[in-house]
Amino acid sequence: LQSLSAGNDFYTSIGQMTDLLYTEKDLVTSLKDYIRAEETKLEKIKVWAEKMESMSAAATLDPEGYLGNPVNAFKLMKRLNTEWAMLESLVLSDTTDGFVSNLTIQRQYFPTDEDQTGAAKALLRLQDTYRLTANTMATGDLPGAKHKTFMTVEDCYELGKIAYSDVDYYHTELWMSQALKQLEQGEESNIDKVTVLDYLSYSIYQQGEIDRALDYTKQLLKLDSEHQRANGNLKYFEFQLEKQRKADEAEGKE
Amino acid sequence: LQSLSAGNDFYTSIGQMTDLLYTEKDLVTSLKDYIRAEETKLEKIKVWAEKMESMSAAATLDPEGYLGNPVNAFKLMKRLNTEWAMLESLVLSDTTDGFVSNLTIQRQYFPTDEDQTGAAKALLRLQDTYRLTANTMATGDLPGAKHKTFMTVEDCYELGKIAYSDVDYYHTELWMSQALKQLEQGEESNIDKVTVLDYLSYSIYQQGEIDRALDYTKQLLKLDSEHQRANGNLKYFEFQLEKQRKADEAEGKE
Repeated sequence: LQSLSAGNDFYTSIGQMTDLLYTEKDLVTSLKDYIRAEETKLEKIKVWAEKMESMSAAATLDPEGYLGNPVNAFKLMKRLNTEWAMLESLVLSDTTDGFVSNLTIQRQYFPTDEDQTGAAKALLRLQDTYRLTANTMATGDLPGAKHKTFMTVEDCYELGKIAYSDVDYYHTELWMSQALKQLEQGEESNIDKVTVLDYLSYSIYQQGEIDRALDYTKQLLKLDSEHQRANGNLKYFEFQLEKQRKADEAEGKE
Repeated sequence: LQSLSAGNDFYTSIGQMTDLLYTEKDLVTSLKDYIRAEETKLEKIKVWAEKMESMSAAATLDPEGYLGNPVNAFKLMKRLNTEWAMLESLVLSDTTDGFVSNLTIQRQYFPTDEDQTGAAKALLRLQDTYRLTANTMATGDLPGAKHKTFMTVEDCYELGKIAYSDVDYYHTELWMSQALKQLEQGEESNIDKVTVLDYLSYSIYQQGEIDRALDYTKQLLKLDSEHQRANGNLKYFEFQLEKQRKADEAEGKE
């Protein structure tokens, strides 16, 4: 279990983590019970809604004719006085209770932000130890790993953000680049390109490569021309590059 | 509008009732919006649950192998620390709000119990005026009615109950018989036979026909042999019949 040793500071044992896998399995079962209960409830409501809809369509086509039949008048009174209230109770009936209380009970055993950060940092150390590219890791080609696992855009972004809050711009760049690459390859994600480009250009600027930082800022502004910080950075980076160019010229003249 | 005149004491005008039909139509639209929102929410949850289920099945098959890959360890931390909480928010997100507040606003214009009772009594008067059988009315054959409307078991039961609370055992019997008939014809209903038979036997007993009341009580006990009141009535009706038989005999001897 060589590869895991890199992470043994963030969660005490494989045994503990195995327990979490079984906890998760139980929660999935509980979630599926909720889904079934909600589907049954929704099906009842749909049947009623469809019956009401066709009745309502016929009635409003000829209200006087419809209400001229006193059985219809009675049914209308009954629907409005009792049936809609029964439907409302059904709509408001709570199907989430079992799942939510299971989750609440199990949550006390869940890992914390620190555990998550610890696991992320273990990955970054592993990357350095084995000199792996972000792409190698993200596509699951880990040394000795039996279960090949892909990292999503969100996973890469998460690693990048953790490196960023550690003022580790080197790994920030690696993982934000990987996130961007996967987005450009068409992966569906909740993470948007603009956010990734923002981190990317800033972490590159912090490593002193203003021209590359400027490129990414321009890419960002193509997607969101009103982006305030990027507009500020654009001017600043261009000013810095101009200054540098002049300094180089001055040096050349000497 | 001859037939309606029988009911003009329970709701002031056709105009008012027509408004209620349009209110109901709007509520159906609002209900369908809720159904769509709930279906969308449920679909998202199902996609996540299915992803989790296949992941969980693979992971628990070989926990050590799975967790031996530190990317999986990181993903487990991330799921438990952030993703399940996001799922919980989604599960708990309220889709009922629009529909329920529309219903609450409209409810102030809804008919009351008195209106419903009034409409039912209008039907009973109409039945007497035109000497209609319950079956004729329940199958929608009303004089001059353009919109033929069937009455459900529940509608018939409701009429019977209203007659019952008016100490009108004659109409109670007519409508409970009709409800029973429709149940026996296989109509699906929330109303159960036992309840109908209970009303039926009591209303017949009140009209003095103990032998017929006894028959219905026996029918009821075939469906629910533990029914307390029916068991009591069985003894009482049998005792009464025996007493009557003896009285008849004594009368015969004189």
